[in-house]
Amino acid sequence: MFTIVAERLNCTRKMIREAVERRDAEFIRGEALKQAAAGATYLDVNAGTAPDTELDTMCWMLEQVQAAVELPISLDSANPAVIEAGLRALDGRPAMINSISLEPKAERLLALAQEFNTALIGLCLAPTGMPNTAEERFALAEQVMAKTRAVGIDDDRVYLDPLVRAVSAEPEQGAEFLKAVRQIRAAYPDVHFCPGMSNVSFGLPQRTLLNRAFVAMAIWEGLDGAILDPLDTGVMAQLHAARAIAGIDEFCADYMGACRSGIFGA
Amino acid sequence: MFTIVAERLNCTRKMIREAVERRDAEFIRGEALKQAAAGATYLDVNAGTAPDTELDTMCWMLEQVQAAVELPISLDSANPAVIEAGLRALDGRPAMINSISLEPKAERLLALAQEFNTALIGLCLAPTGMPNTAEERFALAEQVMAKTRAVGIDDDRVYLDPLVRAVSAEPEQGAEFLKAVRQIRAAYPDVHFCPGMSNVSFGLPQRTLLNRAFVAMAIWEGLDGAILDPLDTGVMAQLHAARAIAGIDEFCADYMGACRSGIFGA
Repeated sequence: MFTIVAERLNCTRKMIREAVERRDAEFIRGEALKQAAAGATYLDVNAGTAPDTELDTMCWMLEQVQAAVELPISLDSANPAVIEAGLRALDGRPAMINSISLEPKAERLLALAQEFNTALIGLCLAPTGMPNTAEERFALAEQVMAKTRAVGIDDDRVYLDPLVRAVSAEPEQGAEFLKAVRQIRAAYPDVHFCPGMSNVSFGLPQRTLLNRAFVAMAIWEGLDGAILDPLDTGVMAQLHAARAIAGIDEFCADYMGACRSGIFGA
Repeated sequence: MFTIVAERLNCTRKMIREAVERRDAEFIRGEALKQAAAGATYLDVNAGTAPDTELDTMCWMLEQVQAAVELPISLDSANPAVIEAGLRALDGRPAMINSISLEPKAERLLALAQEFNTALIGLCLAPTGMPNTAEERFALAEQVMAKTRAVGIDDDRVYLDPLVRAVSAEPEQGAEFLKAVRQIRAAYPDVHFCPGMSNVSFGLPQRTLLNRAFVAMAIWEGLDGAILDPLDTGVMAQLHAARAIAGIDEFCADYMGACRSGIFGA
């Protein structure tokens, strides 16, 4: 099973921001329904463009999404107050906090994760800057895991993001990410992953070719989740195909089901 | 640099067999030109459908191919006499013998490889049957390497084929192949690879999705060559994208060149 945190309901996307501004409930519900039909596990909701209205917008978006689908929700905000308001606005369905990292506010978010029994995304990110090597990513993952374990959060509620960086400027960043996935998977067999994969291709042409290859390689190393657009049939096809090749889709049942459903085209 | 042994000039393909039967030089030359333009490193030539005419057919095909392009040739036959006749028909250009395995006739083929200073494909295959696990593949690779080293063939003239098998019936076969590539690459840093990758998807729908994912995963493990159809732009795109992600295409120069050339479409 691969966890797909569906990324489209994000106010940094122009279509979503404009729909939110005109309080177009039908559009937001439609996006929720489309992503659910395409195979989302969680729907990510990000209301963050204007700090003073983010909390109200989050609650309105959650109202629409919960009216449309029964899927778990990923609450995506840099502001713990917005995360908390979101958790209180949920109807009891499973939730994920997106995200905690090694900042002081992590303590409040960890307490919320425990109080509301949520999953959470843990960024391999320190206030001092982005990780470069696999070893730096692994060391940050160890620090995140120490924090979640300290408050009693089971490893299988944690979705690590080892931080994808672009290969255009730094050709080794793809390999360093993949090696980090291998190391983390070996050291923490119950933890999950949930990176955003598409940064890898930033600044290069025909990005989707790179994103697809990267997803296949990462699945081979143990990637079992990602934030992505489930309406991108190319990436979804690659995901299913890579799981079949890696032998983690028993007798290729998920792959054949996806082919039969027609989501990959003819 | 990734070695592409271009597979289309093979008489088991109906179009090629019919063109050969009517001695359609223009068609054969056209196939050679198309594969060269698409990025082939070697052109594989297989004349084998009728044992009594294979040698004559091989020589005729080589005449056409050598008139059309300057690329190295991979001589593909189960019959050492056909390989030897092919080597004598070449105009001095580099050649590859496809293939040797752990059979008695390997001795004659190894002697030809030395006499004509060719590269060769070494199958990880014993007369007792197909390998199942990564360990069996690695043990067979060790036996092939012992043979080539014994006659003084440098490792970098050897292209191993760790034998791709279908995941449809045996879901672990993709992973076992990939682990074998990892082990062989670690033990023999100068050896190359040249498997046929598409067997992995035998018996499954939308095979190209699986083949592409498999190529990306194998490149991450160290695959540096394959027998494939260079006119399959999906696989070629995946190959370039995977090398860029793995950090072995310095500053993504090959990838960007391929994009600019338009071979991947708009």
